[in-house]
Amino acid sequence: MFTLRAARVSARLPRPALRSFSSSRICSGRAIVYSENGDPSTVLEAVTYPNLFSPPPPSSAHIRFLLSPINPADVNVVEGVYPSKPTKTGALTTQGKGSEGQPVFVGGNEGLGQVVALGEGVKEDTLKVGDWVVVTKQQSGTWMSERHIPVADVARVPNAEKLTEAQAATLTVNPPTAYNMLHDFVDLKQGDWVIQNGANSAIAAAKGINTINLVRNRDNIGELKSSLEKLGATHVLTYDELADKSVREKIKGWTQGKDIRLGLNCVGGKETTLMARYLGKNAHLVSYGAMSKQPLSLPTSLFIFKNLTAHGFWQSEWYKTRSAADRDTLMKTLVEYIVEKKLDTPEIEVVKVGKDRTDAQASEAVTGVFKGLAEGKYGKKVLLNLE
Amino acid sequence: MFTLRAARVSARLPRPALRSFSSSRICSGRAIVYSENGDPSTVLEAVTYPNLFSPPPPSSAHIRFLLSPINPADVNVVEGVYPSKPTKTGALTTQGKGSEGQPVFVGGNEGLGQVVALGEGVKEDTLKVGDWVVVTKQQSGTWMSERHIPVADVARVPNAEKLTEAQAATLTVNPPTAYNMLHDFVDLKQGDWVIQNGANSAIAAAKGINTINLVRNRDNIGELKSSLEKLGATHVLTYDELADKSVREKIKGWTQGKDIRLGLNCVGGKETTLMARYLGKNAHLVSYGAMSKQPLSLPTSLFIFKNLTAHGFWQSEWYKTRSAADRDTLMKTLVEYIVEKKLDTPEIEVVKVGKDRTDAQASEAVTGVFKGLAEGKYGKKVLLNLE
Repeated sequence: MFTLRAARVSARLPRPALRSFSSSRICSGRAIVYSENGDPSTVLEAVTYPNLFSPPPPSSAHIRFLLSPINPADVNVVEGVYPSKPTKTGALTTQGKGSEGQPVFVGGNEGLGQVVALGEGVKEDTLKVGDWVVVTKQQSGTWMSERHIPVADVARVPNAEKLTEAQAATLTVNPPTAYNMLHDFVDLKQGDWVIQNGANSAIAAAKGINTINLVRNRDNIGELKSSLEKLGATHVLTYDELADKSVREKIKGWTQGKDIRLGLNCVGGKETTLMARYLGKNAHLVSYGAMSKQPLSLPTSLFIFKNLTAHGFWQSEWYKTRSAADRDTLMKTLVEYIVEKKLDTPEIEVVKVGKDRTDAQASEAVTGVFKGLAEGKYGKKVLLNLE
Repeated sequence: MFTLRAARVSARLPRPALRSFSSSRICSGRAIVYSENGDPSTVLEAVTYPNLFSPPPPSSAHIRFLLSPINPADVNVVEGVYPSKPTKTGALTTQGKGSEGQPVFVGGNEGLGQVVALGEGVKEDTLKVGDWVVVTKQQSGTWMSERHIPVADVARVPNAEKLTEAQAATLTVNPPTAYNMLHDFVDLKQGDWVIQNGANSAIAAAKGINTINLVRNRDNIGELKSSLEKLGATHVLTYDELADKSVREKIKGWTQGKDIRLGLNCVGGKETTLMARYLGKNAHLVSYGAMSKQPLSLPTSLFIFKNLTAHGFWQSEWYKTRSAADRDTLMKTLVEYIVEKKLDTPEIEVVKVGKDRTDAQASEAVTGVFKGLAEGKYGKKVLLNLE
């Protein structure tokens, strides 16, 4: 029954108002779990837990996951090298590996679910059965067919009927990171300039903020530049171009001498040192990634004489430290951007693990995905759908 | 006459209330000038300017310098490699170098002077004849016997009668840097912890703030540690000790697990990377120097996952961006610290250039000082006194 109903949602048909019902009708769930850190393609396994779901506890929701993204950071979490660690859950235990009954980790940080049932004390204006929610508490474990989760750890997707499942499922990490970095550090006005080496320029463009976007040189650089410009980039420069001294005058011409007051960095290393030199006085450099795996290395003179401030940004921390109202406002804003087509949906590939598969087959499918990811076989973002 | 009066001040006798008088009684001044950037021991020359001083312009003061420090940054300014550049003054020109009449730079950034005369429009509660003032506008040119200077570019020394000339002359750069860095970035409470690699710990100690002070290992390390502890350091560690993993537990014991929320850095390079790893969550790392001449290199993870913020601090910029009232409050606070012996006076050496010397002799004396500084002959801070 639920499968049917969810399928209807997936097909973007209007969702019927769901009746409240006894959650005892759903009794089993499948999860992608691991009991020890390691290579995801080795340590992950799919396990079906029968008779798992009693009615949700007070202030919690029973949600059914529709799509659960696999982000690069998720791999690091499974490996045990990410600073944010999940906790093992006693309700889910190892199965059939000779160490039955030990609590396990459930993988996944980001996920879109639909509310199936609500525990006591959840007000209807907070959450209703049938609502779409995204998980905002980090490392909650989203690679699961369904689970109980405290209402405080999810955000309702506003105007969900206007979004695809993939748009909603990828709403919690990348779009808010791009949005908040543009808003939390510098009070940018229309016509101001940002320099960046990775972030989305669509939100900036939607707000009339200009971006200079840095990319590595490559064969099809002309093509890449036009595609980035189509996505909202005001200008695109390669690091080679940036290293040429004449570019300073060019940039001055673009900005009409206006100081660039915000730099967004997900690369690090010497390319970011170079980028930082183009920031103006009193600028802020915000790092949210380190794709080069090199430290952020900046001349002290930039801090002292140009009053540079360097920050980090972590969307998970944002969710943790901000109020539920802030979170809802953010979601509403981002959904509006998507609806107005000011924000692109990432290219995605859904990996569906059907309920007809055995746990062994499901395990094989999922570990295969991680093997493929490690080999760079997926150009697109992969989303799991565990039936 | 003025020499006498000033000499009396230097001797720490009570200063007589100076009568207002015509500034035409002083007509010549000597300055340490340069017309081109270069090695100070080559490009600096002492020049006497006769008939220089008309009455000071409105809102300006005619001040006689008592002591003008030579700071390491002054050398960089003369070399032309410091970001803050002086402007040439048309009133002072080159003399006897075959290019007479070209405007020159006057050296010196920090200096203590006494007000000799005031231009129109200066209110008595702002400044009076006889007051001690320190120059707060950067690169005003303080290596001079006397000069006109806008009242806005100086700060009156409060409770000057309680200070020595040397204490007052060294009041504008180092003590406020140490003070402001402790106050402008983190709201530190008594019992909180700071980690630093160079700054004065006396102000922190006076406020009940604990400091962990990092030094390079050396032969007399025990001696150095005790002397730093006497000056207010709570603990002193060498970088070798800091690199040992066991020190983390030791520091945890000292701080009783409290996060270190402020790091003060004047070194840079890998030693500062190491220091930054001991900062707690939401900490601020403030750089005010780069003695290692190495960039500040920090793992991006500290910014993202520990929410580190890195800033620079430059006292000159502080003076530029704060109000006169802020500046006066700062001076008052620092003088109180000195009077209460909560702040040490640096060890100094005064180089006096008597008025009986010719310009050639004076030039030789001054360039000799810079040769000596370059050779590391002065362990103490050198202050010029141009009669």
